[in-house]
Amino acid sequence: MGLIVQKYGGTSVGTAERIRTVAARLLATQRAGHDVVAVISAMAGVTDNLIKLAKEIAPEPSARELDLLLSTGEQGASALTAMAVNALGGKAVSLSGAAAGIVTDGAHTKARISHISPRQIQELLAEDYIVIVAGFQGQSPDGAITTLGRGGSDLTAIALAAALKADDCQIFTDVDGVHTCDPRVVPEARKIDEVAYDELLEMAGAGAKVIQSRAVEFAKKFGIGFEVRSSLKDEPGTKATAAPSNLEDWVVRGVSLERNQAKVTISGVPDRPGCAGKIFTALAAANLSLDVIVQNASSTGTTDLSFTLNKDELALTQRALEPLVKEIGAAGLTASMGVAKLSVVGIGMRSHAAVASRLFACLGEAGVNIQLISTSEIKITVVINESDLERAAQVTHAAFGLARPHMPPPSA
Amino acid sequence: MGLIVQKYGGTSVGTAERIRTVAARLLATQRAGHDVVAVISAMAGVTDNLIKLAKEIAPEPSARELDLLLSTGEQGASALTAMAVNALGGKAVSLSGAAAGIVTDGAHTKARISHISPRQIQELLAEDYIVIVAGFQGQSPDGAITTLGRGGSDLTAIALAAALKADDCQIFTDVDGVHTCDPRVVPEARKIDEVAYDELLEMAGAGAKVIQSRAVEFAKKFGIGFEVRSSLKDEPGTKATAAPSNLEDWVVRGVSLERNQAKVTISGVPDRPGCAGKIFTALAAANLSLDVIVQNASSTGTTDLSFTLNKDELALTQRALEPLVKEIGAAGLTASMGVAKLSVVGIGMRSHAAVASRLFACLGEAGVNIQLISTSEIKITVVINESDLERAAQVTHAAFGLARPHMPPPSA
Repeated sequence: MGLIVQKYGGTSVGTAERIRTVAARLLATQRAGHDVVAVISAMAGVTDNLIKLAKEIAPEPSARELDLLLSTGEQGASALTAMAVNALGGKAVSLSGAAAGIVTDGAHTKARISHISPRQIQELLAEDYIVIVAGFQGQSPDGAITTLGRGGSDLTAIALAAALKADDCQIFTDVDGVHTCDPRVVPEARKIDEVAYDELLEMAGAGAKVIQSRAVEFAKKFGIGFEVRSSLKDEPGTKATAAPSNLEDWVVRGVSLERNQAKVTISGVPDRPGCAGKIFTALAAANLSLDVIVQNASSTGTTDLSFTLNKDELALTQRALEPLVKEIGAAGLTASMGVAKLSVVGIGMRSHAAVASRLFACLGEAGVNIQLISTSEIKITVVINESDLERAAQVTHAAFGLARPHMPPPSA
Repeated sequence: MGLIVQKYGGTSVGTAERIRTVAARLLATQRAGHDVVAVISAMAGVTDNLIKLAKEIAPEPSARELDLLLSTGEQGASALTAMAVNALGGKAVSLSGAAAGIVTDGAHTKARISHISPRQIQELLAEDYIVIVAGFQGQSPDGAITTLGRGGSDLTAIALAAALKADDCQIFTDVDGVHTCDPRVVPEARKIDEVAYDELLEMAGAGAKVIQSRAVEFAKKFGIGFEVRSSLKDEPGTKATAAPSNLEDWVVRGVSLERNQAKVTISGVPDRPGCAGKIFTALAAANLSLDVIVQNASSTGTTDLSFTLNKDELALTQRALEPLVKEIGAAGLTASMGVAKLSVVGIGMRSHAAVASRLFACLGEAGVNIQLISTSEIKITVVINESDLERAAQVTHAAFGLARPHMPPPSA
């Protein structure tokens, strides 16, 4: 007994058949004694089609109008889901983000939620309605429809769970949870039962896209527990909390992989204030998002600066940097494709210096050359050749005993 | 110089290319010195697809949710049109029906406009925006999105023109106006420059679907003049007013045709009070819409009752009536397909008894057998064999001299 928020992604509502399945699950949840709020994404493909149409009409569509256009995808899918619940004999109404009381700032296409007034939802719940809320959208204080950025329905669900003080928030998707590694690469990878927000953030950043990062940040900020689970099965998924109950047992929670990377190195950068600033200002101006930035300590008056980025953005990056290399007096610019990132992530890692040595040792034994290393408090990332990625993932997964549940932490 | 409301139908905004054409016309109108409000329908096919999806999910979709679903079609097309204006260097914003201040009753899928609060539109016009309003929709007093029924964007345009005291209201469509007859049947049919509301209503009822009947009724009630014209050409269309300036010159304005009709006759109906009532109550309960209802004067104690309806509804009608024929003691029920309706329409007809005799004479000379006759103040309708329809249309069009503009009225 309690209030449950369930979020369904575009694949989960991608056909009439699937919408009926979602409706049946919502009804079953209500009949089990719960109040139910559902957050619905646009049907798979709809948002992409609308964006395509907008770009045909205007190369750079007005952000205000783009929000009005894109918000219709979630509104339509929500109305269809409510119809499906009603057709099964239930009682449902759908609400746009605005009608659900989701108030955002006025930053069209990337609005931030400022507050939620859930009065209408609460009144409808009190009348035994299943309340279906269009995800990904809200309304600015001056009444304009806004959207929350790609994947924004996750944020809608977490924020509604917070505003409604929900007892549970379930993010239904087409995978059955967060895994210790990509099962297509490491067959013995297994579903993780519990994960810390920070671990999920690091994993999401490193390519495990089960939930929008902003939604996880929001959950962390307000302490909203949620569960990522499959809309196709009826099995527990992965629960995200501040500190998983089995924290002590685990050092490394999972291994994240990211392909399609490129590595750029600017060599011989004069080691004086402002050089790095100029470089990253130029890259930010070109709207490029970098990752794994490494600068070696300098002893010779110059230093090498490396970073990785998505390989699709390499050409743009080179165009942005080439004039700058001369200007700051660097020695040169080298770029390579065919690299990948492997990260081990775990909140328990903070107190275990042994994790790094174990990682480097197992990769070394497997003959995998490490090109760059970057660490955060709960993550160690290595940049390696993409051709080495599968082998590296398998040996790392084995070295940290991730295939066996509840293995004791490795000792150095 | 003045305020112009322009309405564009689904075909006029059916592709990205056509939306750009509409945007160019809106801008040209503004640059000619006018304030411009545009009312936009859903892109051709979108509404039908949404209805199809809804029916896949629920055989009888909830009316409230159907309105939420269908309203997204017009909202999307309006946003795209605003983008197109902006991409051409103009300044446009789109508004949903609710945001435009259109308040309706709560009758979902067939709401009636109760009033319009055009403050936001007026403020935007004062800031030189082209204001694009999603057609076909409004908001009930309790905040639910409603739709105005099929063709409702015409009503949105006329009602906005009334609320804004517009100087002109232009209904852009894929035909270039109202014609004296269907040009595919009568090649010498010509566009009518001016038409009375009542004539347009009778023509619309008789199959000339250039504008929603409810929109014409609204225009008549509030005396809103409007023009039906082509979105593909830049030529004057047909102006609708209370009394066309050349009223005296014209007796018959046009000939309307309607195919795909069926005729039902209940013979030997006892001539006592209540029998006809029972019959039409049963048909209304089955949601059937009838036309051309004829009952002959009775001298034998029984009478024959005939009516026409769309042939697609014939099976349903027969099922509804068969038990009733026995119950009321009628002699029998006969039905025939393959009939059609031909109507001559003209506001000047009121004072010209000669019109009927001229019509019957010309059809007789052409060997066209008349099965049923029905008249209103400004219309005479005959039901004939569908196979006779083209010939009947041609001889009628010629008999009333409709091919030649400004012909003097026929004398008896």
